[in-house]
Amino acid sequence: MAKIIGSALPNIPWQNPPEQLHNPVWRYDQNPVISRHANKISNSVFNSAVVPFKGGYAGVFRCDSKAVSMDIYVGFSNNGIDFTISDTPIIFEGDPYITKREYRYDPRVCFIDDRYYITWCNGYHGPTIGIAWTKDFKAFHQMENLLLPYNRNGVLFPRKIDGKFMMLSRPSDTGHTPFGDIFISESPDLTYWGKHRFVMGAYPGDQSAWQSKKIGPGPIQIETDEGWLVIYHGVINTCNGFVYSMGVALLDLEQPWKVLARSRHYILGPETSYECMGDVPNVIFPCAALTDSETGRIAIYYGCADTVTGLAFTTVDHLLNYMKEYPLV
Amino acid sequence: MAKIIGSALPNIPWQNPPEQLHNPVWRYDQNPVISRHANKISNSVFNSAVVPFKGGYAGVFRCDSKAVSMDIYVGFSNNGIDFTISDTPIIFEGDPYITKREYRYDPRVCFIDDRYYITWCNGYHGPTIGIAWTKDFKAFHQMENLLLPYNRNGVLFPRKIDGKFMMLSRPSDTGHTPFGDIFISESPDLTYWGKHRFVMGAYPGDQSAWQSKKIGPGPIQIETDEGWLVIYHGVINTCNGFVYSMGVALLDLEQPWKVLARSRHYILGPETSYECMGDVPNVIFPCAALTDSETGRIAIYYGCADTVTGLAFTTVDHLLNYMKEYPLV
Amino acid sequence: MAKIIGSALPNIPWQNPPEQLHNPVWRYDQNPVISRHANKISNSVFNSAVVPFKGGYAGVFRCDSKAVSMDIYVGFSNNGIDFTISDTPIIFEGDPYITKREYRYDPRVCFIDDRYYITWCNGYHGPTIGIAWTKDFKAFHQMENLLLPYNRNGVLFPRKIDGKFMMLSRPSDTGHTPFGDIFISESPDLTYWGKHRFVMGAYPGDQSAWQSKKIGPGPIQIETDEGWLVIYHGVINTCNGFVYSMGVALLDLEQPWKVLARSRHYILGPETSYECMGDVPNVIFPCAALTDSETGRIAIYYGCADTVTGLAFTTVDHLLNYMKEYPLV
Amino acid sequence: MAKIIGSALPNIPWQNPPEQLHNPVWRYDQNPVISRHANKISNSVFNSAVVPFKGGYAGVFRCDSKAVSMDIYVGFSNNGIDFTISDTPIIFEGDPYITKREYRYDPRVCFIDDRYYITWCNGYHGPTIGIAWTKDFKAFHQMENLLLPYNRNGVLFPRKIDGKFMMLSRPSDTGHTPFGDIFISESPDLTYWGKHRFVMGAYPGDQSAWQSKKIGPGPIQIETDEGWLVIYHGVINTCNGFVYSMGVALLDLEQPWKVLARSRHYILGPETSYECMGDVPNVIFPCAALTDSETGRIAIYYGCADTVTGLAFTTVDHLLNYMKEYPLV
Amino acid sequence: MAKIIGSALPNIPWQNPPEQLHNPVWRYDQNPVISRHANKISNSVFNSAVVPFKGGYAGVFRCDSKAVSMDIYVGFSNNGIDFTISDTPIIFEGDPYITKREYRYDPRVCFIDDRYYITWCNGYHGPTIGIAWTKDFKAFHQMENLLLPYNRNGVLFPRKIDGKFMMLSRPSDTGHTPFGDIFISESPDLTYWGKHRFVMGAYPGDQSAWQSKKIGPGPIQIETDEGWLVIYHGVINTCNGFVYSMGVALLDLEQPWKVLARSRHYILGPETSYECMGDVPNVIFPCAALTDSETGRIAIYYGCADTVTGLAFTTVDHLLNYMKEYPLV
Amino acid sequence: MAKIIGSALPNIPWQNPPEQLHNPVWRYDQNPVISRHANKISNSVFNSAVVPFKGGYAGVFRCDSKAVSMDIYVGFSNNGIDFTISDTPIIFEGDPYITKREYRYDPRVCFIDDRYYITWCNGYHGPTIGIAWTKDFKAFHQMENLLLPYNRNGVLFPRKIDGKFMMLSRPSDTGHTPFGDIFISESPDLTYWGKHRFVMGAYPGDQSAWQSKKIGPGPIQIETDEGWLVIYHGVINTCNGFVYSMGVALLDLEQPWKVLARSRHYILGPETSYECMGDVPNVIFPCAALTDSETGRIAIYYGCADTVTGLAFTTVDHLLNYMKEYPLV
Repeated sequence: MAKIIGSALPNIPWQNPPEQLHNPVWRYDQNPVISRHANKISNSVFNSAVVPFKGGYAGVFRCDSKAVSMDIYVGFSNNGIDFTISDTPIIFEGDPYITKREYRYDPRVCFIDDRYYITWCNGYHGPTIGIAWTKDFKAFHQMENLLLPYNRNGVLFPRKIDGKFMMLSRPSDTGHTPFGDIFISESPDLTYWGKHRFVMGAYPGDQSAWQSKKIGPGPIQIETDEGWLVIYHGVINTCNGFVYSMGVALLDLEQPWKVLARSRHYILGPETSYECMGDVPNVIFPCAALTDSETGRIAIYYGCADTVTGLAFTTVDHLLNYMKEYPLV
Repeated sequence: MAKIIGSALPNIPWQNPPEQLHNPVWRYDQNPVISRHANKISNSVFNSAVVPFKGGYAGVFRCDSKAVSMDIYVGFSNNGIDFTISDTPIIFEGDPYITKREYRYDPRVCFIDDRYYITWCNGYHGPTIGIAWTKDFKAFHQMENLLLPYNRNGVLFPRKIDGKFMMLSRPSDTGHTPFGDIFISESPDLTYWGKHRFVMGAYPGDQSAWQSKKIGPGPIQIETDEGWLVIYHGVINTCNGFVYSMGVALLDLEQPWKVLARSRHYILGPETSYECMGDVPNVIFPCAALTDSETGRIAIYYGCADTVTGLAFTTVDHLLNYMKEYPLV
Repeated sequence: MAKIIGSALPNIPWQNPPEQLHNPVWRYDQNPVISRHANKISNSVFNSAVVPFKGGYAGVFRCDSKAVSMDIYVGFSNNGIDFTISDTPIIFEGDPYITKREYRYDPRVCFIDDRYYITWCNGYHGPTIGIAWTKDFKAFHQMENLLLPYNRNGVLFPRKIDGKFMMLSRPSDTGHTPFGDIFISESPDLTYWGKHRFVMGAYPGDQSAWQSKKIGPGPIQIETDEGWLVIYHGVINTCNGFVYSMGVALLDLEQPWKVLARSRHYILGPETSYECMGDVPNVIFPCAALTDSETGRIAIYYGCADTVTGLAFTTVDHLLNYMKEYPLV
Repeated sequence: MAKIIGSALPNIPWQNPPEQLHNPVWRYDQNPVISRHANKISNSVFNSAVVPFKGGYAGVFRCDSKAVSMDIYVGFSNNGIDFTISDTPIIFEGDPYITKREYRYDPRVCFIDDRYYITWCNGYHGPTIGIAWTKDFKAFHQMENLLLPYNRNGVLFPRKIDGKFMMLSRPSDTGHTPFGDIFISESPDLTYWGKHRFVMGAYPGDQSAWQSKKIGPGPIQIETDEGWLVIYHGVINTCNGFVYSMGVALLDLEQPWKVLARSRHYILGPETSYECMGDVPNVIFPCAALTDSETGRIAIYYGCADTVTGLAFTTVDHLLNYMKEYPLV
Repeated sequence: MAKIIGSALPNIPWQNPPEQLHNPVWRYDQNPVISRHANKISNSVFNSAVVPFKGGYAGVFRCDSKAVSMDIYVGFSNNGIDFTISDTPIIFEGDPYITKREYRYDPRVCFIDDRYYITWCNGYHGPTIGIAWTKDFKAFHQMENLLLPYNRNGVLFPRKIDGKFMMLSRPSDTGHTPFGDIFISESPDLTYWGKHRFVMGAYPGDQSAWQSKKIGPGPIQIETDEGWLVIYHGVINTCNGFVYSMGVALLDLEQPWKVLARSRHYILGPETSYECMGDVPNVIFPCAALTDSETGRIAIYYGCADTVTGLAFTTVDHLLNYMKEYPLV
Repeated sequence: MAKIIGSALPNIPWQNPPEQLHNPVWRYDQNPVISRHANKISNSVFNSAVVPFKGGYAGVFRCDSKAVSMDIYVGFSNNGIDFTISDTPIIFEGDPYITKREYRYDPRVCFIDDRYYITWCNGYHGPTIGIAWTKDFKAFHQMENLLLPYNRNGVLFPRKIDGKFMMLSRPSDTGHTPFGDIFISESPDLTYWGKHRFVMGAYPGDQSAWQSKKIGPGPIQIETDEGWLVIYHGVINTCNGFVYSMGVALLDLEQPWKVLARSRHYILGPETSYECMGDVPNVIFPCAALTDSETGRIAIYYGCADTVTGLAFTTVDHLLNYMKEYPLV
């Protein structure tokens, strides 16, 4: 059995797999866990991040208001399933030139050393990667944007590698980007970034068509004894629009731009009515994962149809075996 | 309390708001009120107009046939909820050059002085605004098209202002128009139109993104003591298509090109399966409203997913307060 | 009563029409008959072909794997409703240059003389028409591709006409083709094809808008004493994507490029949740029909939302009458 | 010989046709008559209008500045060939709400009764038709915009017809419009416009492909005893962009929405280096014509490659005969 | 020295290469040889075919009329440089269903056995390959269209191979096709075609970017002792449109779907003003070649900017050596 | 008089302005200085960089080969006008993972401290900014790519500011980018970059439309006592493609993300045949400038129509005055 490197999380949300299992990831049977009306002004609550916090859970949530204005909000939960989400967006401290808001969406939360780093897609003359840190989910300190526009989905690694901070991201453009590959960048200090490496890209053609148009990183990478587990989204372009599914890959622990394995099959695709119907139909977009090193359990939070938030379960072994069973050459 | 200027309508269709109210407009709980198979040949019955008539209700309905040929049909109802719709389209009297049909859709009905004027999107070398009048919903007299192509959504005011007929409209193009602003025009005689003024436009950016791509007028403007209430549709362009929602604004009573207030939030967005699923998913398109001046009640008929017709309720105070609570600067 | 020229099929799947019949074709009330998880690796099972075989039924099924790789699979059924589908794609025998797989989809099966011919959309530097034959649904012998790229939907006639094999097809392009007309071609030997004739095309404008963007042939043409019955798909382009519906036409028996009748109305359009929701919403795509010459019954297999397979029923008289009731001039 | 209804203009610019005449219109051999650097700040001087004025000529010129800001300027000439153009744009008097400039381009000048009316494409929440009048080409009085957006090329008739002002125009959209037909509108007072009629449209297909994409009116219509002579532009869409050529049609004198004749061939197409090379290659765009009723001579000013202004010559008989020789059925 | 298999042509048009030779093909220094006004109604004369005929030359010429209607015309020349072109298009004899003209363009002429076959892009519900034969360039007998739409550039081989007629073609679509590869087809009788093989395609990427968007065959393939010499066009898509250049490849004599060599460099690209300026700037489009087996000389006729016809020279050795010097792996 | 901070360059190429000066920049009267056939395999030589070197000049030149493969080549000149350019591209030393070539274009050369840094658009899973250094223009040492894809036009500042290297760049996408703004980034070591700031963007609307679509930095920024002089390109999107012109701005010396001045007018636009005709018509693209601090003279090298290289002259005072005369508010 493979091992997750990390803390035990005995109260991780969990359900055993159903009898008939079509994918290595299975849905929480009370999905969606967060409805579109989760706070007073929300039109939708979806691509969002949850982390263990003080025995329970804290999170940073993408809520689009009823003006369809995109911002990120704090929320808390005792059990990782029932959440209370603030009615007002996070206020960031810092240089006013930096904290000036254009729009904010698709947050990730990564604990490194002694604090939680939030990264998100930040509007600054186009989408780029914003970052802030908090220790208490009350005060948030915004830092310089990490990258030049245009970029989405900046996902930090949960520890330094060879003395450097590392991050996956997906370079993008100004609109509904028709391309997207995953790159890695490194930094001595979280301010200056360089040594950008290609990690993996969309896979044109028929062999793995669910990820033929674009891909992008999802939850914080999960450290295992076999490599970094990357849960990501992939997109196919049908004649009636994009379909977003969830996939998995494994990166080398010390040279994480090297792909050790990647699943030819998606691990979860839009199928239920809450995934296929909503503001943007046919979207599964994972943004966070909880892990329990004792059991290898993984609980994934994912946006559904850009409208609500779903929860799904798997284990490190389910994912590793699936990549072996359906390898992408 | 604000006052609607107009007649009492004691038998207006009505339901009180549900306990948990997410928007200032709430749905009839037996929606849709008109199914896609409402007459013998209909594929869908949606963007349509209802008015009080002889103690009950009459209406002009957009029915797309099973050939998906777009035309407008007469229908009647005792209670504003159960409708009988003709199996054959309206036949118009008038100059054959004018009454020659290319296609007709999205009717509005406006009572001025002594008769009902029907305006609609009329095919004449492209979409423009057709007009006809009736006194009995049996004989319909078609007049000259009101505007040059390309225009959709010509919505008359229910009385002359400063001696002139007034109309809102949305200039358009020949296809699935990717832009759209609301203008006002005036006329001494309903034939010649001029003094075109910009009223309000799509709102690019994040602040009110549900209406960032295009907007267009909906039901006949409702006169209140605070101004003309305009219920309109707004559109956002997602990566998987347009989403149409319903909004509200308030125009100056005597200078109706002046916008006194406008809601930053939509007042109803696609959420139910009959709004999110159908020939054109994610469409809410209001075309008519009944009002009761005694109670301030408003009943709105709106097209759902370009397939069926829904009914929703609000009051003049709900709308006015909502614009104050969520103003669009 | 019109007569189907062909065999009796007493055990044809069948349900009588419902009381309220909106179209000349009605759905099986336990639809979909084949779910998206019909075999071990399938993401979806849809545009597929079924034929009578040894007292029961055999079929060739389009299964997209969970990699969304498109291939065709064999399956069998006793009753035409419950199918067992292979977990692995068909292996073709023949010249390796020809059998080399790029992708395969949308099969049709046509019995001529003594064997079953399978045609499908075959990837060969773009989509073209692949062909193979089998006698037992175990060994499949692939022949030369029938046409130059780019073509989809090659549908053979079930007998030679005037000594020649005949085929309908839809010339296409390399992507999500925005046009599509039906042509006929003839061949002395199934290898060399010529004398290409236009049969019928998309019908621009409002008169029959459901087929205004493109059309393409569906099941094997059905011989009747009045002509060849062609059940086909037609497409309209809405602002939120393509909608695929089912239509019917009648071709001359001996000069099948001559259209004797064509329905202005579609005969079945997307309406149910399994047709409106799925990987490609709003798709009805017929690929096969069973017929019983004794009763005139027809059972149609059609892809639903590019995700599952539906079954629908009609009779030769329902179809012929409907073309008379709603003729397309 | 056909007769131009109008004044004699003995000093009309003129050259006899060259020996080998490929078109019924021939170029001035010293073209371009106005260079791109005609005033101090001009990047280009092209689609512009010239009229007889006080024994010489006055004109309103489209000059794009070196900022490529589009405005209209006054200019004068003794001979219709050498022009002095103001270094500053026209300042309009009138209601500041109306005179507020967004952009202005493609002017026409039409003398009716006792004054010169200038119409142009006026930026007002999109392109529409602006209008002003002058008696002396010093003071310009701007009136209400004539039409709703989106419209370009509003060209007045030089006299009232049946007591009404008449105008041709080309409804348009917000960008590089891919369609365009000519309509006529009438007005009792130049403020209110109605009774919009289709006149003629782009001609799809091969028969007259130079005008298959869009057409629009050019100089002020020329009254002849056989009808109104309309010199207009037509556009074909090649794989490397639009090509604009010049055509001619004849409208009924009293019912000018009736097309009596139209040339299948263009009458002048881009051929010289100053027409094929410049800011927008391959553009011939006529905006004004001088006529001499004594001789039937016509001198046409036309924009060349959106960069400079050319002059070309013809006679009323050349044009009328050409329409007879190459009629567009 | 390589040998051309074919007749001697002592009076082939010829000029020796200039001192400084940038490409293996050099232009005639009096280009263009045919002007846009070559016949009475021509707007342009370009993609055209010339063959030796009765001691001089005959040709079939694409003339776009001043209506920009595309048709093909006969012409003759004594020296291959000065041509007389008919003022009226070719009239074809044959089945009126077949000879009905939509449009015709880009002819090739191929002598096989005892007659000249003309193939061209023929409008029949879209572009396909038309064919006719003549023995005297007076009477032309049209046969069935060779292929289903959509196809352009059908170029026959000048002799049967292994008892079959052979043809290169470029499958296409209905508009300004953004893709294009060369395929080969064979036929026992010029009516039925099959055994379609991919020959070579556009070459995406940087290595040979001049042919990265599409390619298509040009003159009749030239038989040499080393293989079939194919002179073809290739297209790159710049930010300001397509650029068409001329390339060369070598096919196996008996298995002509096998590419023996192909030049990485173009052999002639648009450079002169008559190639860079015209109705479609930056187009070099070869359609015919004369060869002299005695000297190895080749004279190529090519369309220039879709406006005029140019002539260029090379030898079989220049071409073969160039492919060796700049091979495309 | 403003002062250039830098070295004297007495032998700077130079011509005095012509009598009639339409722009503050004037062309060398023997343009183009580098022809498309400047080396053995070149199709075109354009966006290129020249610097003073050992009493003469060295340069790095973009040559597209006759395969239209894009690479950069070394060249030398005694006078800055007559250049000898290598027939083979630069070979870079360094980590093979980094030096692996996809494509290279649009070089800039910047001398900092003791060496010349070359930056260029480097193909690495999309366009990004490559960098290398040389001391002798013989050995070139390639370093890590400076930024994530997708980026073009990385232009270093010629000295550190506040201890940091600084660079302007234009984030981009994977194709013919329809947007483009200039950002600044800083780095302690040329490897890690951060603190990205917006500098200035395209200017939508009519006020300065020549730069309404996109802009990007050009030559190395020129230090003056009034600020950093930025010569850049701006693009307008006409109906027939992009037009690239040259503009100028002034940045704050110590806080170079602050724009002190910017010219509303372009300073040079495509006008001559070598700028308007070529592989990409209507392109002026500056990549390098020589300066003489003694006289304030500036000589600009710019690509013409993506085909040849032009030379133009100005002085620091011409540019500063022009920004004052035509300021962009």
